[in-house]
Amino acid sequence: MNETLNIIAQRYSCRAYKTRLPAKSKLEAIAAAAVQSPRAMNRQPGEIVVITNKAFIDEMDAEGMKILSDAEDKSTYERFMSRGGKLYYNAPCMFLILKKPGTDADIGIVSENIALAASALGLGNVICGMAVIPFNGSKGKLFKQKAGFSGDWEFGMAVLVGYAEKSGKPHEPDMSKIRFVE
Amino acid sequence: MNETLNIIAQRYSCRAYKTRLPAKSKLEAIAAAAVQSPRAMNRQPGEIVVITNKAFIDEMDAEGMKILSDAEDKSTYERFMSRGGKLYYNAPCMFLILKKPGTDADIGIVSENIALAASALGLGNVICGMAVIPFNGSKGKLFKQKAGFSGDWEFGMAVLVGYAEKSGKPHEPDMSKIRFVE
Repeated sequence: MNETLNIIAQRYSCRAYKTRLPAKSKLEAIAAAAVQSPRAMNRQPGEIVVITNKAFIDEMDAEGMKILSDAEDKSTYERFMSRGGKLYYNAPCMFLILKKPGTDADIGIVSENIALAASALGLGNVICGMAVIPFNGSKGKLFKQKAGFSGDWEFGMAVLVGYAEKSGKPHEPDMSKIRFVE
Repeated sequence: MNETLNIIAQRYSCRAYKTRLPAKSKLEAIAAAAVQSPRAMNRQPGEIVVITNKAFIDEMDAEGMKILSDAEDKSTYERFMSRGGKLYYNAPCMFLILKKPGTDADIGIVSENIALAASALGLGNVICGMAVIPFNGSKGKLFKQKAGFSGDWEFGMAVLVGYAEKSGKPHEPDMSKIRFVE
């Protein structure tokens, strides 16, 4: 099978990571794939922030879990607790995609390039919209400063990357969602 | 270089296509890649409509160009006229991604899987947000019927696919958009 199609078919969302940080050359290759993304409307690319400062990641994780535990609906908190109690699944690296308002489709494109590049390099990864939670809380301004948000850039998406704690399998794709108009 | 990273690096937005329709097995492989996409929030996948009926594509194209020519700001119309006068660049196949409201990041993820799968199979492709134009005009309801839109599904994105009229090169990526927080 074509290697790229195989990477797409075998990729899965990794929700448990080893502590070991991947080599910087790999993270640079993934970041390069991110800025090689096309744009749906020829807009300027988003900013890519590669966070490997584990103390910072853990600080955001703890704040995110606190926000979830304080929420009236505890179902999301309980889901993360059942998965190990970490919003970021102990990932040693977060690719943070910053956006300008109204460019969500572009953010998805960049996210998938990061995910597939990571998979191609043998790294686990998960596209994590929930990663926004700590940025929306009372420490959000501090976290944005630490991550270097400037001007009107805002959180677009995060992709967590690292060595998978154990291998996983993709969901069965729903082929019934495909229709041909011939 | 890793094949998948190379496909990501070499992909470009193709804006001129040969008339010849790619083999259905290739289109099916691309559609499979689309439904193998991850979701940012574990939502249900979008629907994938693969349109290869050239008369239908041309009908939407003509309507889209008419809408652009009638617009007060003629700059978009003139840009398409300078590129050959076709909203869909004569592409023989349109992958239409339908969405539920508020899932734009997911639509971007699916779009990029389609684009990279097409590139991996040697096919030109372009993610085309402008493809929505004919769906928003006076014939929009008819086009949605012909494409089989149902319920509250709406246009998410289109990816045009076919054999490139001539080979192209990617834009130079803006590496200055990458920052590390270590």
